[in-house]
Amino acid sequence: MSYDTAFLADVLPPEQVTTGDSARDSHAADWGAQQAGEGVTPDAVVYPESTEDVADVLAAANERGVPVTPYAAGTSMEGNAVPAFAGISLDLMRMNEVHEVRPDDFQVDVGPGVMGSAVDEAVEGHGMFFPPLPSSGNISTIGGMIANDASGMQTVKYGEVADWVLEVEAVTAAGEVFTAGSKAKKTSAGYNLKDLLVGSEGTLAVVTRATLELAGLPEQIRGGRAVFPSLDDAAEAVFDAVRSGVDVAKIELIDETAGAMAAAYQGSDLPEAAMIFVEFHANHGIEEEIAFCRSVFEAHDVESFEIAGDEEMDALWKAREELAYAVQTYDPDLTPLHPGDITVPVSKLSEVIRYAKELGAEHDLLVPCFGHAGDGNVHYSVLADPDDEEMVARGEEVYAAIVERAIEMGGTATGEHGIGTGKREYLEREHGPVAVDLMRRVKGAFDPKDTLNPGKVFPETAEAGGRVTLPTDD
Amino acid sequence: MSYDTAFLADVLPPEQVTTGDSARDSHAADWGAQQAGEGVTPDAVVYPESTEDVADVLAAANERGVPVTPYAAGTSMEGNAVPAFAGISLDLMRMNEVHEVRPDDFQVDVGPGVMGSAVDEAVEGHGMFFPPLPSSGNISTIGGMIANDASGMQTVKYGEVADWVLEVEAVTAAGEVFTAGSKAKKTSAGYNLKDLLVGSEGTLAVVTRATLELAGLPEQIRGGRAVFPSLDDAAEAVFDAVRSGVDVAKIELIDETAGAMAAAYQGSDLPEAAMIFVEFHANHGIEEEIAFCRSVFEAHDVESFEIAGDEEMDALWKAREELAYAVQTYDPDLTPLHPGDITVPVSKLSEVIRYAKELGAEHDLLVPCFGHAGDGNVHYSVLADPDDEEMVARGEEVYAAIVERAIEMGGTATGEHGIGTGKREYLEREHGPVAVDLMRRVKGAFDPKDTLNPGKVFPETAEAGGRVTLPTDD
Repeated sequence: MSYDTAFLADVLPPEQVTTGDSARDSHAADWGAQQAGEGVTPDAVVYPESTEDVADVLAAANERGVPVTPYAAGTSMEGNAVPAFAGISLDLMRMNEVHEVRPDDFQVDVGPGVMGSAVDEAVEGHGMFFPPLPSSGNISTIGGMIANDASGMQTVKYGEVADWVLEVEAVTAAGEVFTAGSKAKKTSAGYNLKDLLVGSEGTLAVVTRATLELAGLPEQIRGGRAVFPSLDDAAEAVFDAVRSGVDVAKIELIDETAGAMAAAYQGSDLPEAAMIFVEFHANHGIEEEIAFCRSVFEAHDVESFEIAGDEEMDALWKAREELAYAVQTYDPDLTPLHPGDITVPVSKLSEVIRYAKELGAEHDLLVPCFGHAGDGNVHYSVLADPDDEEMVARGEEVYAAIVERAIEMGGTATGEHGIGTGKREYLEREHGPVAVDLMRRVKGAFDPKDTLNPGKVFPETAEAGGRVTLPTDD
Repeated sequence: MSYDTAFLADVLPPEQVTTGDSARDSHAADWGAQQAGEGVTPDAVVYPESTEDVADVLAAANERGVPVTPYAAGTSMEGNAVPAFAGISLDLMRMNEVHEVRPDDFQVDVGPGVMGSAVDEAVEGHGMFFPPLPSSGNISTIGGMIANDASGMQTVKYGEVADWVLEVEAVTAAGEVFTAGSKAKKTSAGYNLKDLLVGSEGTLAVVTRATLELAGLPEQIRGGRAVFPSLDDAAEAVFDAVRSGVDVAKIELIDETAGAMAAAYQGSDLPEAAMIFVEFHANHGIEEEIAFCRSVFEAHDVESFEIAGDEEMDALWKAREELAYAVQTYDPDLTPLHPGDITVPVSKLSEVIRYAKELGAEHDLLVPCFGHAGDGNVHYSVLADPDDEEMVARGEEVYAAIVERAIEMGGTATGEHGIGTGKREYLEREHGPVAVDLMRRVKGAFDPKDTLNPGKVFPETAEAGGRVTLPTDD
């Protein structure tokens, strides 16, 4: 179905509205939907330049019941930013201003279209950085990170995006502007709407400005690569390092398959072996920390643990950051089905990885695993030939079984990419019907007409009108 | 008004229900209401012993529209646990079981009636602790800490209670049991109901079980006391220490007035001077950190900075923890009006303290200030003779002016004690009408009949029935 969006001509000037095919098509895909071949084309794309623009578009669309799906850099993995029911794609990339740096408070105010790496560039002169940036920080926006409660390699030491967003300005579906959170470091004044908005995937309100907290750059940064005889040894070494209190800033696990793919993509000499990439941040005593970590790795039969020079370190992290591309391009006949992630309690890390690898082997499928192992967070893909229906079906089965196992272990269906459309079916299995019903009621409280990013997060869609069923208040 | 609670005889066995005066009276006060002389007596007190008990009471009360106010140790400061409209006081102190310690995951599951210090006792054998305990951790419960999103001296390094609660089991007003959050360290699966419940003061649901995250005990702990020539110097020293990245685990500011009160209460030789109490946690390199801190303090003309032995350290922290009592008992003719706290962006710390002290002096009132200064969090009281109406009025004015100044500075009316009834009038000033209306809608989504802790958080009460006005869904 499509919606009449002609009213937008009365809301924004012509250079901020388009119904051209190329813009509409480019807003019908994100990283995940691109690979899964899903995505509905919006009827129009708008480019707000201010909070007022956002409010005007939302109010006008809400009045008419036209869906609005926020969009930014399009790097989401679960279809989060792709319209499920056409309507308007709200492209926030022009709201990319770094408004104010307040170094005395370790704070910066930014627009939702600011790239993650641009935040770091804006504050590094003050000796500061934004710690929870995801690996895709140079191609993804703060707005998207907030929408999905993103996190990344440094989350093991510093926490996730939610922990570093102090306050947001946002616009409701009806076009009302409000702020949530506080510029104070802590508050217990009323309900925590800020953390309710973070991770709500643009279904409750549209964030138009965010106050981010910053950390001081550490004086010492060192890191390196450890190679293990088996994936089990490496996973157990990660667990033991975290369990023993080794103060790591990053601790990434890469399995043999992912290692081979990274080597092929980069043309590097990365071994086809289970590896840990690790980084330490300290103001003093970094050598003691490295020695402590080495003793833990040695207890798990580490084959080598080499501390890298600056250049080698950059190459290592580049290899890790580009793993998603490496997986995607490894074999031209194979496509990753739903690249995604699960997270389990860290004691279950090696068990869930072993399960994923064995299941892949049993079904004769490549299942590269890597990720932020210190948090119990595993990224995995199941590769299949999209033209081979049987292989795709096998792959889907393996993919789903791994998510289900993670939930059984007390973990989550999605550690940092949200639910989108890709993981709707797991929401209730993870949280149970009462909690999901409460979520639906919260959605209804914020967006009673279901115009904001409809079709996301919640499992079912209504028959009539194709929108989420919202409960009434009684 | 009072409610008929005879139906409780059909819900719980007789030893779990009382309508006796002494129990009812003791549930009509918390720390704050006690001093302010406020508090409504409940019609009945119930003592659930399980999640099912809580669910049964809530369902039965909800059916009849009878208010239920959760109560635990009664240490709240803003009337949060005191019935505003009689009904049932739900005393959770019998649900005080430490259910399970999972040291491999740094997790412990506890009931809401478990005392903070009991958590530490249960896990210290594993070399772990629960970092965000408030100063009152030995007399307050985990349920209360979750309800108010409490925090404490170690929040400057480790964060607040919300950061260390992974998952909660809770019961809705209608008696439905659900869980929110995840036992995985991070999740982006659906709305963050867990952090919505934390800090909601028992107005959305009653927490019946919580999974807490733990930290490893540091290998090195040192601390001491620094004396400064003026409060301004001390406040600036705190700011500079935080700004420079000194890794403090506690950094507490105590003004001359509070110092004198602590000395009098303890019979100790604490000087009547502006002081900082500080503690460091590290696995190595603690001497470097102390030296770094000393250099910062010296730049602010510190008069002395003595690192304490273990025994002296215990005495120092005891003095700090007992400051609330010291303020209360300092002069038998004077009572602290609303002991409470505000939090400001840390760069505004010395400014807000200076304002409070000057305002006190101008109005000829004692205004002791102390608190978790590294977070910008200031506890203050205004002392007045309760029999002197004019003095009380002057005191109320000073008290309110300080809260308002904190909000103007981008801070919050309450850093760690919630809104309760004591700070209802500031909610809208801090968050604005749109955000407060959204909070009301969230309340309506969870508790459409407004039976859970009615009269708290929100500014106005309806005329009829004396309950919060909830918006309808359209």
